[in-house]
Amino acid sequence: VTNTRTQSGEDRIIALFRPLAQHPGAFGLMDDAAALQPPEDCDLVLTADAIVGGVHFFTDDPPGAVARKALRVNLSDLAAKGADLAGFLLTLALPGTADDEWLAAFARGLAADVEAFACPLLGGDTVKTPGPATISVAAFGFVPRGTMVRRGGARAGDAVVVTGTIGDAALGLRLRQKLEITARWGLDAGAHAFLVDRYLLPQPRNAIASAVRRDASAAMDVSDGLAGDLAKLCDASGVGAEVAVERMPLSEAARQVIARDPNAREIALTGGDDYEILCTMAADKAAAFRAMASAAGVQATEIGRITEGEGVRLLDEQGRPLTLARTSYSHF
Amino acid sequence: VTNTRTQSGEDRIIALFRPLAQHPGAFGLMDDAAALQPPEDCDLVLTADAIVGGVHFFTDDPPGAVARKALRVNLSDLAAKGADLAGFLLTLALPGTADDEWLAAFARGLAADVEAFACPLLGGDTVKTPGPATISVAAFGFVPRGTMVRRGGARAGDAVVVTGTIGDAALGLRLRQKLEITARWGLDAGAHAFLVDRYLLPQPRNAIASAVRRDASAAMDVSDGLAGDLAKLCDASGVGAEVAVERMPLSEAARQVIARDPNAREIALTGGDDYEILCTMAADKAAAFRAMASAAGVQATEIGRITEGEGVRLLDEQGRPLTLARTSYSHF
Repeated sequence: VTNTRTQSGEDRIIALFRPLAQHPGAFGLMDDAAALQPPEDCDLVLTADAIVGGVHFFTDDPPGAVARKALRVNLSDLAAKGADLAGFLLTLALPGTADDEWLAAFARGLAADVEAFACPLLGGDTVKTPGPATISVAAFGFVPRGTMVRRGGARAGDAVVVTGTIGDAALGLRLRQKLEITARWGLDAGAHAFLVDRYLLPQPRNAIASAVRRDASAAMDVSDGLAGDLAKLCDASGVGAEVAVERMPLSEAARQVIARDPNAREIALTGGDDYEILCTMAADKAAAFRAMASAAGVQATEIGRITEGEGVRLLDEQGRPLTLARTSYSHF
Repeated sequence: VTNTRTQSGEDRIIALFRPLAQHPGAFGLMDDAAALQPPEDCDLVLTADAIVGGVHFFTDDPPGAVARKALRVNLSDLAAKGADLAGFLLTLALPGTADDEWLAAFARGLAADVEAFACPLLGGDTVKTPGPATISVAAFGFVPRGTMVRRGGARAGDAVVVTGTIGDAALGLRLRQKLEITARWGLDAGAHAFLVDRYLLPQPRNAIASAVRRDASAAMDVSDGLAGDLAKLCDASGVGAEVAVERMPLSEAARQVIARDPNAREIALTGGDDYEILCTMAADKAAAFRAMASAAGVQATEIGRITEGEGVRLLDEQGRPLTLARTSYSHF
């Protein structure tokens, strides 16, 4: 008689994650697949993003923050597409160093976000790796049929709007990479912690997904740097854009850094990891959109206009074009 | 003016995979998410599985075979759940050794399967890793509402049916791991190549997904060894099973090995990587199911019966219970 009641390592991992999988279609993580019943007349919106230890996070980052970042970079894509969240699949490639304690903290962090974003774990896979921890998430949302907000819908005359503040995460990453920068930038502990935290834990703007869906002509999340991502949106739309750099929304901490170190402005514009929403909309919709976002606790700032032609012109305080050494983070 | 027309490494990778993404909802891999229009009155079936270099494949395996294995282990889950294929997301974590040539061969292999299984690439992500190549796939299918075949539906008296032949991949893996085994097992080149190929390239049984959906009371794919996977199915269903080991479908090559090396029978029963469908069904449905599978080019074999109680009894040629050292492959 074959007895399978002894708990294997895999069973222990599944038990850790089962509380996150309350959706009936997750089958308590006890089946080989999940099932979702799509709402009537809706499209399913699908996205996948992975983060790798030593590349997208520090291997000594708190496991709960790693878990939340892995989920949030995906939720950010769904927010920018105007999708309501439905759930996600989680694939963990775990090194030997990911012991029970690491995994339990990872699951606790993830559980907090599953609840905060009402986005259930539907299933996934756990495998061993001789490399660093690699967390792959595929996340799903729904939109009324045909209403997913594309990259390619921007039209000349549209307002260019961005949520939150730009550059914090890129500056926070520099603070973690180069200790001497902390001294040069002369930040107080609060500002330092704010920037570092913005790198550690993105704040996806799912609270305004329905407003994006209602108002935006084009949208994407800012993950590889605002300058380059806006250029991608313009390329996809066959338009150009003009942006006033002075209108770029900056946190108080980022302002302090840029005042001390003029190079930091370019880092902020091109560094990436913002996970804010960049969108365009008919100019007469911008005020209502900003008000609706504000009511949901999200700042939205009009930073420029879509133009005929192609290319993004960044203009400084004197209206002079700004030239950047590079426009965005490249993965390769 | 920001010029993004220069092709980055990421753009080159996307260009390689764009031919695989002909589904209109993949948006030519040019957006941040994909969109699928669910058929009316259908459930979406979702699964995710990853394979890691040095763990699930050899790092010098042909890249095209690696790609196909990564997809096929997922398609196998969808076949066992009775789902019609809709598409997949691909997340690649690539080491520096995955150069343009490796990637092009990977994409060519994947393209062959995208066509063979009519399962389009919908989107994904590509990241760098200091570790081995890690390929995460999330795959999707549809079933008429409420008809996904679960693990937990087996009832006492049901026939236990398995597709294809069992143990080939596990024996093929041993041949690759231990050169001296090749001599001991004394296989001719054809039999050797057959077993090695069965490890390299699973043959998921999606051709009979609709038959599984129509007839099976419970099903799962055999990935961690038949003995252990049947025990999991029985546990989920609250039943037991009795299986005649002599009825286990074996390839000619596996028969040759077992004749030479009696230990090989246990490897075949517990080794995993079969990616066959294990299912149960009312006994009077088994003949029609086997005929329908055969018409689709898939062998299906009745190997035993579901019983009251719990646990899987494996019986040898004399009807004596067989005891295994371990019942299945454990990932941890």
